[in-house]
Amino acid sequence: MELTERQTRIVEIVKNSSPITGEQIATKLDLTRATLRPDLTILTMAGVLEARPRVGYFYKENHEPSALLVRLRQLRVGDFKSIPAAIRPNISNYDAIVTMFTQNVGSLIVVSEEHELLGMISRKDLLKAALGKTDLQQVPVGVIMTRMPNIIMTMSDEPVLEAAKKLMQHQIDTLPVVETFIDEHGDERYEVVGRFTKTNVTKILVQIGTLGQ
Amino acid sequence: MELTERQTRIVEIVKNSSPITGEQIATKLDLTRATLRPDLTILTMAGVLEARPRVGYFYKENHEPSALLVRLRQLRVGDFKSIPAAIRPNISNYDAIVTMFTQNVGSLIVVSEEHELLGMISRKDLLKAALGKTDLQQVPVGVIMTRMPNIIMTMSDEPVLEAAKKLMQHQIDTLPVVETFIDEHGDERYEVVGRFTKTNVTKILVQIGTLGQ
Repeated sequence: MELTERQTRIVEIVKNSSPITGEQIATKLDLTRATLRPDLTILTMAGVLEARPRVGYFYKENHEPSALLVRLRQLRVGDFKSIPAAIRPNISNYDAIVTMFTQNVGSLIVVSEEHELLGMISRKDLLKAALGKTDLQQVPVGVIMTRMPNIIMTMSDEPVLEAAKKLMQHQIDTLPVVETFIDEHGDERYEVVGRFTKTNVTKILVQIGTLGQ
Repeated sequence: MELTERQTRIVEIVKNSSPITGEQIATKLDLTRATLRPDLTILTMAGVLEARPRVGYFYKENHEPSALLVRLRQLRVGDFKSIPAAIRPNISNYDAIVTMFTQNVGSLIVVSEEHELLGMISRKDLLKAALGKTDLQQVPVGVIMTRMPNIIMTMSDEPVLEAAKKLMQHQIDTLPVVETFIDEHGDERYEVVGRFTKTNVTKILVQIGTLGQ
């Protein structure tokens, strides 16, 4: 259960005084009904509250998630990931920018010859380099990339919702999708098998929402 | 109803031979069960197919969308939009990049003094300028921005799903949220009141999926 502070207060109010209208909740919180609408919608969609027309909101003890929600939670990254847009660390920042344009992606995954995850480079990193004194043609991406172990990753069997949470929490657009393997020294390493982005998440929402219409 | 070609073929197969297992559908399409899984999941979530354990898939004639799906389709942009990250057209591209970093956004909305929508500028536009011969300090964003009428927009009362579709179809990250007004010549113009991005969509999916858990 991950409620915002305001959502927690709404749930408390509904628990203590249901049925209660949106208008009445808004008055108690000193907010407008319009400000509360998204919270009430989300809480009702998630099955925490029940909205009865012309009566008001009820708190749902032991709320059963809807079948759709159960399925939403079962979606796995592996079924919706994109192919990785990957480059080697020795190519120039200039060539990295050109690759971004030709592949039309916002981030590139930097990999070794064996497709092992070494780092990530984003449009933001490259803009920063372009602003500074970095010679884009001469300096390789390996110098300015964000490098392991500072990369947030996902795996094919991770739930889509967990991966989406990572994208939000870390304010990033792209997660490399990896598989772990053990190298000759017994250390854990990561092979890149895809990428998972906010575009994949948006596509999932559009597909769920528009199919069967 | 917006099905991909493969989803259409799946629906046809299920219509003609239900109940049918995922394995059997995969064989008919000469694909693996794993390849079909996301399509089958989405079709089931959207209520087009019904999955009965140990029996198989059925086509649902006149499928009723679930209550959650009905609500999902009712979500409006205005309830989930972010405040606009806006700049004036006369500031330099250099300052635009700095503003992007300080506001941590991928696109800036270019507006007049009256907050009228004039154009958009993205990290991609600025990277392109940085690669070329453009003097970032001297050239204003008004010169390199994408300008009206070539801007894809949304409005507060547009369904979130429609806005998300626009983001996918036009391969963009940000839609300016506008209100129309009529200027002194009787022409329609657009005032910027927010922005709607793939980050907003991702947040909605995370909220729906994780609340009430």
